[in-house]
Amino acid sequence: MGKKNLEYLQRLRDAMKAHRIDAVIISGTDPHQSELPPHHWRGREWLTGFWSVNGTNGTAVITADKALCWTDSRYFIQAELQLKGTGFSMMKEDGPDAVNLIDWLVENMNPGQTVGIDGMTFSVSYAQQIQQELSDNDIKFNDNFPQFDYIYPERPPRPKNQLFVHDEKVVGETVDSKMERLLTEVKAELANSVLLSSLDDIAWATNLRTAGDIAFSPIFVAYLYVEESERVLFVDSEKITDKVAEHLKKYNIGIKPYDSVLEFVGNLPKENRLLIDPEKTARGVYDHIGCTPVFGGAGIAKLKSIKNDTMLSNLSIAMEKDGVALTKFFMMVEKEYPSGKLTEVELGKRLRALRLADPSCVDESFAPIIGWNEHGAIVHYEATEESDVEIKGNGLLLVDSGGQYTYGTTDITRTIALGTPTEEQKHDFTLVLKGHIALSTIKFPAGTRGAQLDVLARQFLWNDGKAYYHGTGHGVGFFINCHEGPQSIRLNENPVALEPGMITSNEPGLYLEGRYGIRSENLVVTENWKTTEFGEFLQFKNMTLFPFDTTLCDTSLMTDEEIDWINNYHKTVYVRLSPLLSKEEQDWLKEKTKAITK
Amino acid sequence: MGKKNLEYLQRLRDAMKAHRIDAVIISGTDPHQSELPPHHWRGREWLTGFWSVNGTNGTAVITADKALCWTDSRYFIQAELQLKGTGFSMMKEDGPDAVNLIDWLVENMNPGQTVGIDGMTFSVSYAQQIQQELSDNDIKFNDNFPQFDYIYPERPPRPKNQLFVHDEKVVGETVDSKMERLLTEVKAELANSVLLSSLDDIAWATNLRTAGDIAFSPIFVAYLYVEESERVLFVDSEKITDKVAEHLKKYNIGIKPYDSVLEFVGNLPKENRLLIDPEKTARGVYDHIGCTPVFGGAGIAKLKSIKNDTMLSNLSIAMEKDGVALTKFFMMVEKEYPSGKLTEVELGKRLRALRLADPSCVDESFAPIIGWNEHGAIVHYEATEESDVEIKGNGLLLVDSGGQYTYGTTDITRTIALGTPTEEQKHDFTLVLKGHIALSTIKFPAGTRGAQLDVLARQFLWNDGKAYYHGTGHGVGFFINCHEGPQSIRLNENPVALEPGMITSNEPGLYLEGRYGIRSENLVVTENWKTTEFGEFLQFKNMTLFPFDTTLCDTSLMTDEEIDWINNYHKTVYVRLSPLLSKEEQDWLKEKTKAITK
Repeated sequence: MGKKNLEYLQRLRDAMKAHRIDAVIISGTDPHQSELPPHHWRGREWLTGFWSVNGTNGTAVITADKALCWTDSRYFIQAELQLKGTGFSMMKEDGPDAVNLIDWLVENMNPGQTVGIDGMTFSVSYAQQIQQELSDNDIKFNDNFPQFDYIYPERPPRPKNQLFVHDEKVVGETVDSKMERLLTEVKAELANSVLLSSLDDIAWATNLRTAGDIAFSPIFVAYLYVEESERVLFVDSEKITDKVAEHLKKYNIGIKPYDSVLEFVGNLPKENRLLIDPEKTARGVYDHIGCTPVFGGAGIAKLKSIKNDTMLSNLSIAMEKDGVALTKFFMMVEKEYPSGKLTEVELGKRLRALRLADPSCVDESFAPIIGWNEHGAIVHYEATEESDVEIKGNGLLLVDSGGQYTYGTTDITRTIALGTPTEEQKHDFTLVLKGHIALSTIKFPAGTRGAQLDVLARQFLWNDGKAYYHGTGHGVGFFINCHEGPQSIRLNENPVALEPGMITSNEPGLYLEGRYGIRSENLVVTENWKTTEFGEFLQFKNMTLFPFDTTLCDTSLMTDEEIDWINNYHKTVYVRLSPLLSKEEQDWLKEKTKAITK
Repeated sequence: MGKKNLEYLQRLRDAMKAHRIDAVIISGTDPHQSELPPHHWRGREWLTGFWSVNGTNGTAVITADKALCWTDSRYFIQAELQLKGTGFSMMKEDGPDAVNLIDWLVENMNPGQTVGIDGMTFSVSYAQQIQQELSDNDIKFNDNFPQFDYIYPERPPRPKNQLFVHDEKVVGETVDSKMERLLTEVKAELANSVLLSSLDDIAWATNLRTAGDIAFSPIFVAYLYVEESERVLFVDSEKITDKVAEHLKKYNIGIKPYDSVLEFVGNLPKENRLLIDPEKTARGVYDHIGCTPVFGGAGIAKLKSIKNDTMLSNLSIAMEKDGVALTKFFMMVEKEYPSGKLTEVELGKRLRALRLADPSCVDESFAPIIGWNEHGAIVHYEATEESDVEIKGNGLLLVDSGGQYTYGTTDITRTIALGTPTEEQKHDFTLVLKGHIALSTIKFPAGTRGAQLDVLARQFLWNDGKAYYHGTGHGVGFFINCHEGPQSIRLNENPVALEPGMITSNEPGLYLEGRYGIRSENLVVTENWKTTEFGEFLQFKNMTLFPFDTTLCDTSLMTDEEIDWINNYHKTVYVRLSPLLSKEEQDWLKEKTKAITK
């Protein structure tokens, strides 16, 4: 790939010269600030050669004599390797040798020089921050340099996958009701209209989905404009089936070509106050707005995060389906493991096939992490043909996976022992599990934030001089993105309180480099517990249905309450899953959910 | 008092008219942003009649036809009562009926009208915020309206108490060393000089103290200017003894009159970059600065919070002295309680006398909170002649108190049962104690913030549907303020990490309105624990030395580890205190520190 990259880089530098741009910043996102954009917008990966099927995180900076690609610590090894010979060097975005990209530009550019970006692939906030710091140093800024239009003629088109309606019986809310709630939030921000750019917001608001636009997520490429008397979906016409057209008509949503959004916002009457979220809206869109923009949108992000009772009872169905797939999967693993022929990649294929066997499962919800022993210690491990290993000997197998069911999105991690686990592995597994249980069972006053509860999952590891540094919990969408804001349970402060109806993961872990990894993850929903003279209290309810590996439990480290919790959880798992299983599978699950004692 | 207040109010309105001021805001602080200012600056309390010996929190707003005094929920009842007949009405600063003071002004003033303040009693930040919001609404702002100069001729003078040197053998650091560290922080903020306004910062930096300027704190009224080649203390000359003059001379600290600080900062050379903390510096000072002001100071606040080994070993001595006073006190309570003649006020006097019997104890560190039964449920209860009750019958006695020893500042709360406690009281006491122990024993990675650990102290109450809403821990100064930043352990986020050498309180509680209150408080110091492959870990070490009331422990709710913790702590208390006690006191303490079992 290296030689080709050098050629592309030269083409880019020619274009920069022609447009009097001295440095260009290339983001890794799209006009919708997608975490994993469609191929059409994955030019940064294509240009630098630092890429993977499921996407990478990176930002490139090119000047006349330098070509750099920033990325985070998850990707240091991969990026270093892939960037060899491409003309690009790696820069670190985090860790002790981190260099801030904007600081680098300020230090390496001269006053009077110009930095260019494609304003459609930068958020309003980020572009504003760059512009401000450049301008403080007398460096010019051009946000209209769509570099890939010049150097990338073979660019893949925008995805044209057909949409389908997400059954309102499953969602429990009509589009009209959502629009009404949306407009309430718009008015609360003293605006009278809103432009949604974030694809998960749009899928939520329209009850529409697709498959294929974005890997592992049923969302689709579009913009949505809403005001009291007008609703417009900006979308490629190839995506609209008759049924979808009917659905849109029913809810008075007009259809306009995707690209016409710029002209549309440009022609909005001056007195219109248009709400946009500066973190989610492209600078290129903002530049076109002809009316008064109002920055906001925290309230809108929260609408999607709170699931109604219909969604929750459907998610229970998705969890049963997921539990059945996992039962079949882990039963197969145990059966075939002695052959020594199972590999991580093979397991990934089998697990995918088992989930997708259910007609309601549209896709996996992310690229599964299946790590045997030392691979389990790599937090974002993705087995490839090169890294793949056979599952044999003694060890721990970590499996983090999930499905996009029309009944809801799942995400579960289990760590199991194959062969004989060591005492140390049992000790560590039990500390992680104790943290999982402490978080799962906590009651807390309304208004509590995830960062306040996070330590409950970490305390037993910390008291043993151990730690994991990823978040303990992320929000989960309902047949949308598996990672969804605004709430989280993590080390870092996040001002959003946990509210009834929010789905969050509970996934403490432990990673011993070069040895093994452990993670235990369920999804929980926040719900009301009770109101006392001290206020309103909330609690978590477990949604996920699959046993933890009790052969890894060191019960001498567990309290009676913790043992009761595991036994009760396993009882529920068996009761819920067994009616959906064959006799052989039932027997297997019975054994796996057997009560443990001290 | 009411009639006098009406007269003062009229005088103020005359002055406002003369100076063309339509509304005036009167703060409750001084030019040093003191929490409890000297009487000279307590004009707001004097004008409104809402006051107490130990200070109140309030801000007044006066217009031609309105006179309002804002305060927080701790004072609602008291303010309502005291404001009767003064011409002032109470406004709520927090709680469900809260009204924002600035919002009120914006709504009640007309464009073109003028709001006045005495810029010397508002921080740069707060004044800036007021000015910005007024200006957004076309309301004018005059920050040079020193209202009490006009209407308060009988104003008490500034305090003239003499200073003394805080022994460097106790502090473990010379003034030169502190000045060097101070200038390192100054340079880190790209400034070359600093003006300290905060009285605790100045006491820390100069190793000087006094008694009487500020109640319960040995700090003194001054400003301190420091640059590489000049150090100036702005202080009233009456405060300087020969010894203090010698100390200042030794460290090349010049003395200038307190009031001359304004002229001094006005004459600083233009190229001087003067660091000021906008939260701690008066707007009136800022207005006079003739050079370039640099806003900052987080690093300086941290210097004071980290105690060196000498300070920590001296604090251990203070803790022993405090433990002895408390032993004598609680022994007396037990002995005299059956007489039925002890009252809360009387206990306060006795406790003060017992602490001050030690020559190194200069003052109490705050107004003690001594609450019997329902009074214990009032978080900031202060027994007065009116509220005082006799300690008799069965119940809980909550005693929160501390001393200003030259060896360090103490702060401790114990709740004891007198008569026979109920099962409910024992249950609640034990939940609070379990939280205290969980926080006390946690190990945590370097970089952890107090808000992350806070839930450990609350979890057992929450799981029982109970809660307290005050902070779990505040920073504590070293023979300076009992409440000191920048770290804290509380519900609200505070970005400051807990670092080795910081002293913090650990004080969970529970308050049942009209029935009883419980609080268990020790001071802990953060220290290194160990470094593992997962990073550097810290832990807390207990400093406070006095037993918890084990007759209130319901051991059936406690784990073996918790029981061991209590027994080990009590063993330490006995070993450390007994050599300083009489035989009778030793016997009493032996009984109180007896091991408990399930």
